[in-house]
Amino acid sequence: MRLTERLVELGIDIPTYPKPLASYIPAVLIPTNPQQIITAGQIPIVDGTPMATGKVPTEVSIEFAQKCAQQCVLNALAAVSGLLDGEIDRIERVIRLGCFVACDSDFTQHPVVANGASDLLLELFGENGRHARAAVGVTSLPLGVPVEIEFAFHLSS
Amino acid sequence: MRLTERLVELGIDIPTYPKPLASYIPAVLIPTNPQQIITAGQIPIVDGTPMATGKVPTEVSIEFAQKCAQQCVLNALAAVSGLLDGEIDRIERVIRLGCFVACDSDFTQHPVVANGASDLLLELFGENGRHARAAVGVTSLPLGVPVEIEFAFHLSS
Amino acid sequence: MRLTERLVELGIDIPTYPKPLASYIPAVLIPTNPQQIITAGQIPIVDGTPMATGKVPTEVSIEFAQKCAQQCVLNALAAVSGLLDGEIDRIERVIRLGCFVACDSDFTQHPVVANGASDLLLELFGENGRHARAAVGVTSLPLGVPVEIEFAFHLSS
Repeated sequence: MRLTERLVELGIDIPTYPKPLASYIPAVLIPTNPQQIITAGQIPIVDGTPMATGKVPTEVSIEFAQKCAQQCVLNALAAVSGLLDGEIDRIERVIRLGCFVACDSDFTQHPVVANGASDLLLELFGENGRHARAAVGVTSLPLGVPVEIEFAFHLSS
Repeated sequence: MRLTERLVELGIDIPTYPKPLASYIPAVLIPTNPQQIITAGQIPIVDGTPMATGKVPTEVSIEFAQKCAQQCVLNALAAVSGLLDGEIDRIERVIRLGCFVACDSDFTQHPVVANGASDLLLELFGENGRHARAAVGVTSLPLGVPVEIEFAFHLSS
Repeated sequence: MRLTERLVELGIDIPTYPKPLASYIPAVLIPTNPQQIITAGQIPIVDGTPMATGKVPTEVSIEFAQKCAQQCVLNALAAVSGLLDGEIDRIERVIRLGCFVACDSDFTQHPVVANGASDLLLELFGENGRHARAAVGVTSLPLGVPVEIEFAFHLSS
């Protein structure tokens, strides 16, 4: 099934791409390999506003941090859409996620937070949604959000 | 010398691949470039149990964190082995390490910890083991481990 | 305009490459794609000495952290120069920056710090300087520096 069809089936809208916070671009095609696309670090912004600020789990619950991770996926798809003039059905495979969780020093459940993104990708892409992933806990993130995720996707030619 | 021979020479066993902690896979071949393989972030797990938990250097010594970094290498080789049906001799070159050290705020010796991995790779691959590397200090890591490392390898065709 | 000419125009000298802190190399050409080069994590060292140590913004101001990020760019160009025997004019496009800022727990302006690097790349490369970027806040960095940046560049053939 096409990604656009699957999104309709799941009732998910891809947002308009959130404006980059600074001097960078939301996604880049690798020049020597235009079937590979990487995104900038995506944060859980909805309509220009952070979904949450603070550390996991004391200020932001694990459950809500998972929702933030899901929003990072949607914003990544929006970034890809912007670069490919809407042709997100060209995404064939998810390659890699780099997941940063702003958290308390004794937090150990980063993989559970990152699953918010990974599980949504599996739902959207099936087996082609499986990816390599690093998940680490950081001191703080832009705008104070609890999650930031970078993505690498493989595109059809 | 082949990697498998070198491992025997050094008396090193590649472990069975540790089960991913969540919804991701241990390693991915880049679809448009099946000579490049990246691993998920590897943590120092032995037989399903973390080798250590806590921050470097107050809770985990630099020396032990280096051993943890070595274990990340072995687990990365296990991940590659799993994807290549045991054909780890196809690894020709180490390209990149991304090393995350869970540490105290005033820690400055991340490169020394990361050398635990880098030096083992040099021992295993000789000059082909030389790689680009980033080493940074993070708040916390999955399961409370002190080190997590991502790898990129180049494979023979 | 060539990068070397643009550097002269801006009065910028590329430093001699700072010696790696440990068992890694400053930059790597991707073996299957010798038009892509990645650097090791670059830190703001000048003549072997850190430009600053401490956290942003309490110990190192945002403005000075931006200068540190600029120095990371110069050191990255030095790393590329070392690998390409000085042929930095072969850099055609900036692909990606991974920016780590050692900062206080409530810091939210990582993008502003990272702009120190991004804006300089735009000045040097024009539109070809635009890149994807992740910027995150970390606990500490090697030698106590406030900024570390990894780079991926695309080279002419």
